[in-house]
Amino acid sequence: MARTPTGAAVLQPEVTQAITDAVLNELAEQGYGRLSMEAVAKRAGVGKSALYRRWRSKPEMITAVVAEFSVTRAADVDTGSLRGDLRETMQALIDWLTHPLFSRILPDLVAEGVRNPETAESTRTSIGGPRREVGEAMLRRAIARGELPADLDLEMALDVLAAPIYWRLVVRRAPAEPDYLDRLVEYALRALGA
Amino acid sequence: MARTPTGAAVLQPEVTQAITDAVLNELAEQGYGRLSMEAVAKRAGVGKSALYRRWRSKPEMITAVVAEFSVTRAADVDTGSLRGDLRETMQALIDWLTHPLFSRILPDLVAEGVRNPETAESTRTSIGGPRREVGEAMLRRAIARGELPADLDLEMALDVLAAPIYWRLVVRRAPAEPDYLDRLVEYALRALGA
Repeated sequence: MARTPTGAAVLQPEVTQAITDAVLNELAEQGYGRLSMEAVAKRAGVGKSALYRRWRSKPEMITAVVAEFSVTRAADVDTGSLRGDLRETMQALIDWLTHPLFSRILPDLVAEGVRNPETAESTRTSIGGPRREVGEAMLRRAIARGELPADLDLEMALDVLAAPIYWRLVVRRAPAEPDYLDRLVEYALRALGA
Repeated sequence: MARTPTGAAVLQPEVTQAITDAVLNELAEQGYGRLSMEAVAKRAGVGKSALYRRWRSKPEMITAVVAEFSVTRAADVDTGSLRGDLRETMQALIDWLTHPLFSRILPDLVAEGVRNPETAESTRTSIGGPRREVGEAMLRRAIARGELPADLDLEMALDVLAAPIYWRLVVRRAPAEPDYLDRLVEYALRALGA
């Protein structure tokens, strides 16, 4: 077995991409508990050492891959109006939560987090935290423009943007009508006190 | 092996209760996929025939037990005002979603529903449907009293009552502050356009 190099410089981006794709597909198909490093390596067409060169453990690998997938999908745009920003944010939330792979991964990650507080904590820190920072910046811009009350309950506000989408599309598995995005934006404007 | 009687009259309520408790505990500990009829029967101190006398299959048993648990916990009260009804409804939602056993069962059921559309469908029909009827009756009373607009988007309204609680307490596993219920009620009154 070859010695494992430790310098980041030796990591090939196309190998990282193949592993990332393999992790997401294995998570969607097998779930957190049944995912094995062997299966990920085989699917990516690499040796297991290529995985351990990047992440120290299965939990660390899963968190990093899901965080990269999720945080890059937060709508980080400034349209100049709360309505415009909400529309982009809501659409990005719908796309994230209904992504063919991710819509199967997140419920499983939530179930895993219930049994394993460490998983819940690393998910909160690496996915929820950075995504909420993007959302908070959007709300603070609206406050600065006078579109939202200065004493807005930021934590509740961030909950009420994402929550109805997850509840409807993932928990209830009810369909989104063609005007769903419009209705969401109107509801959110009211809920935030715009 | 004794022949299985089919008449409902022979079902002893205390046996049904013991099985129900066993199903909820096994679901919380093992999850949907790993729950076995053998383990439920053993835990309840009955033979497997006592289970099959009541339900035809594992999925049917799980759905019936979780539905009974969930539907009886929907707040079916009429306090005379929307604010009062929302307070009862939100408190009942918090109690349901944070119940020591159920807070581990529902995320697992959601994850199972993602992989198995039949589970999702029976959950929707037997749990979501009846619970939403109770919520809809509450909203219709408020419309009749003139506290909510007559053209209220009922489906969205029901989503926005339950969703933030599930998102905060189960998906994010963030704590509920002492004033959480008050803040929820204020948010809901705004979101519904009261």
